Amino acid sequence: MSSLPDKEKAFFEWYNEVLERSFMTDKRYPVKGSNVWTPFGFSVLRQMDRLIREKVEPLGYQETIFPTLIPETEMQKEAKHIKGFNEEVYWVTHGGKTQLDVRLALRPTSETAMYPMFALWVRSHKDLPLRVYQIQNVFRYETKTTRPFIRVREIHFYEGHTVQLGEPEADAQVKADLDSFNAITRALCLPHLTDKRPEWDKFPGAYYSIACEYLVGGNKTLQIGTVHHYKDNFAKPFGIGYEDKDGARQSPHQTTYGISERLLGAVVACHGDERGLVWPSAVAPIQVVIIPIPKESDMASVLAYSEDVRQKLSSGGFRVALDSSDERPGAKYYAWELKGVPLRLEIGPREMNENAVTVVNRLKDKAKISCEDLCGNVRKELEKFDTALLAKATAAFHGRLRITMEQNELSDNIVSLVGWCGSEECGKKVEEGREVSLLGTLEDFGPLSDRGGNPPPCIMCSNETTQWAVVGRPL
Amino acid sequence: MSSLPDKEKAFFEWYNEVLERSFMTDKRYPVKGSNVWTPFGFSVLRQMDRLIREKVEPLGYQETIFPTLIPETEMQKEAKHIKGFNEEVYWVTHGGKTQLDVRLALRPTSETAMYPMFALWVRSHKDLPLRVYQIQNVFRYETKTTRPFIRVREIHFYEGHTVQLGEPEADAQVKADLDSFNAITRALCLPHLTDKRPEWDKFPGAYYSIACEYLVGGNKTLQIGTVHHYKDNFAKPFGIGYEDKDGARQSPHQTTYGISERLLGAVVACHGDERGLVWPSAVAPIQVVIIPIPKESDMASVLAYSEDVRQKLSSGGFRVALDSSDERPGAKYYAWELKGVPLRLEIGPREMNENAVTVVNRLKDKAKISCEDLCGNVRKELEKFDTALLAKATAAFHGRLRITMEQNELSDNIVSLVGWCGSEECGKKVEEGREVSLLGTLEDFGPLSDRGGNPPPCIMCSNETTQWAVVGRPL
Repeated sequence: MSSLPDKEKAFFEWYNEVLERSFMTDKRYPVKGSNVWTPFGFSVLRQMDRLIREKVEPLGYQETIFPTLIPETEMQKEAKHIKGFNEEVYWVTHGGKTQLDVRLALRPTSETAMYPMFALWVRSHKDLPLRVYQIQNVFRYETKTTRPFIRVREIHFYEGHTVQLGEPEADAQVKADLDSFNAITRALCLPHLTDKRPEWDKFPGAYYSIACEYLVGGNKTLQIGTVHHYKDNFAKPFGIGYEDKDGARQSPHQTTYGISERLLGAVVACHGDERGLVWPSAVAPIQVVIIPIPKESDMASVLAYSEDVRQKLSSGGFRVALDSSDERPGAKYYAWELKGVPLRLEIGPREMNENAVTVVNRLKDKAKISCEDLCGNVRKELEKFDTALLAKATAAFHGRLRITMEQNELSDNIVSLVGWCGSEECGKKVEEGREVSLLGTLEDFGPLSDRGGNPPPCIMCSNETTQWAVVGRPL
Repeated sequence: MSSLPDKEKAFFEWYNEVLERSFMTDKRYPVKGSNVWTPFGFSVLRQMDRLIREKVEPLGYQETIFPTLIPETEMQKEAKHIKGFNEEVYWVTHGGKTQLDVRLALRPTSETAMYPMFALWVRSHKDLPLRVYQIQNVFRYETKTTRPFIRVREIHFYEGHTVQLGEPEADAQVKADLDSFNAITRALCLPHLTDKRPEWDKFPGAYYSIACEYLVGGNKTLQIGTVHHYKDNFAKPFGIGYEDKDGARQSPHQTTYGISERLLGAVVACHGDERGLVWPSAVAPIQVVIIPIPKESDMASVLAYSEDVRQKLSSGGFRVALDSSDERPGAKYYAWELKGVPLRLEIGPREMNENAVTVVNRLKDKAKISCEDLCGNVRKELEKFDTALLAKATAAFHGRLRITMEQNELSDNIVSLVGWCGSEECGKKVEEGREVSLLGTLEDFGPLSDRGGNPPPCIMCSNETTQWAVVGRPL
């Protein structure tokens, strides 16, 4: 098969082609932007969802499922919220042949599905904090170009919602959520920036919004996680209140935490290469593939030895496959590399005689490891692989970001860090006549912490400032 | 709190009350029949879904997710199918303010979402069998009374779909699916009957339909699982074809396998009692709860010993909780019994001194077990509990079913097994003027295999017959 398009020169051609060849998704479904999670795509999604659950449940989040359909009357309760989603809501108008009295929205997000119930669930300060999440699909009638995982109309979505005593507790929840998101991206070997959205670009209804951005390349960014503080902006219209210790009625503050399938798109974009997908070990549906390379004379014993290795690794908790098909080894390497398996174990007569295996990782690093403490050795190889993956991703990340002092240096080729006085006027000027947005003020440098220090003066008005702002072009 | 309504005398009062008190679901959501999966409800659902995955994946089914929205043009391709679902489909007509060119159905089931893709995926006999499943929600605009888990408008649904070379392969798949369903209900300690639906009551579009029925009590039945053989009824209109070994184009045969959240409703209905829910160990979100009963003087050591027991069980793979709150033991027993936990471990100073725990299971069976091989002993206690649960459920099942020889014996109080000649005329006569249906011909007696033998003559025309038919009133 011909080689993949050049990822650096033609990112989206590469992206589409690698997803199609590996059969990660099928975008030929007859509704635009509604893609099929194929068996292979789902096998990765299952690991992503598991990783998210692992990292959010220790914060006290409990899993739930709220209904998909939201009455228009509930959707309208928070004015900015409905205004923000008005253009992208799918409306159900009929059940069978019956026209419905109240139109039903397919949830674009679940605030207005959950909060009528929170109003019933929360009575007293003893009920707080309330922390629930769901991993379900949400629907947005996107008018922009759709792209698998990155912009779709039916979105696989993690959303966490909390109800807190007041503002400081909600602030602390935001911090805890961001920490958990950092833990998720660390497991994915995925560097990112964190910024606080400007006032004019907050989530509809939020008090403040914090976004985590993956740098795709050029000046392009991809929002892969968001955490919002709602103050009591929703609690009031939805009638969520509690009795405090002194018996007085209070409005709680709320937060939300969202991660969509975009995160999976970012993992594909970040680690994939000219040979195909590359999965960090945390979410690789198969972490280790075993390829027996027997000679005619020792076929049976090499296969038996390979199966023994498979069983040991499987018992040790690894996700492992043994490829004993008739294909030649080269064809197998090609196919498993395309699918992004972190480690390949090659087993021939020499390995068998030495009670060892040859390990080749997806970054082409090669080693021979002993089968004494096979599981321990494979674990070390996976860690080594993840470390190398993160180093590679971090180097690319550094190369995609530049401190920019002058307006005329704002570029199509790189994401800029600029000084910003914080005024909407200067913020809007940054965007004027350029295909970039002021994404927000930097909250967390991610892997850039060594570049910290004071920001330069505001790139527009030259006033002194203490804030860095991120300027890029959201995908 | 007052005691629960009498389950035998007032089943639905009991059912609603036990679900409300245990907070298994919240039906106050402002769309009728769209209930909320609360944290507790979801914790059971998670185990149910895991059990289903465990039992269907060894058959070769691979998990996927297909889109929720189906174009009306696809829905209409199989004539009987759309006719069967016409009255209960929710229609999306608008995206934002834009009226859609083609209305989109919220899937009531996923044949017409999956099969356009199967037409692309299947090319050759080498691509068969294709077996995929999804665990997602489907939507049906039900006009009958809604009841949590039993009849809702947004339904948590397992659906397996296969494409097979031909009729015998599809028949074999049906058998394999029914075997896996039996394995699921065995794990749930849930006896059921299996019948083949009469021609006039098949799934819309099916060649034949097989249903698994739980007997609720009185003459009421609850369909908890279905397997359908579609022949090439869908393959033809959807253009699914393959090239056989000789290069000739063939129409594959298809099957489906469905299990909805009703199965959870049946587990609640089957095992629950006057003290609340009762979970079989396979799906109990907490299998073992530890209640320390210290005296003032040995508080710390009993708590430490209890924590040690918890850790051992948790490491042993059990789902375990330690309730060290300040409530008195009686209140704790009450709360955990309501939630259906199979085993309660009571730990006081005597147990501690004997290196033992007292086990009381949810059926009130009591024993003292040693903490030498604690995990092994707890496993045995769980098996003993499941065995007793199944025996109790089987006895109730026997009491709800009667061989009926005469028309005037068809009763409101029991499900009837009758002889049936197989004619639609006689079948319809059974239903005439009675609030019962002829559910189908018996395929599998379930726990009734000892009552087999030849059926009596047809209950209507008195002709000799070899088929038993099941007569009851579907919930």
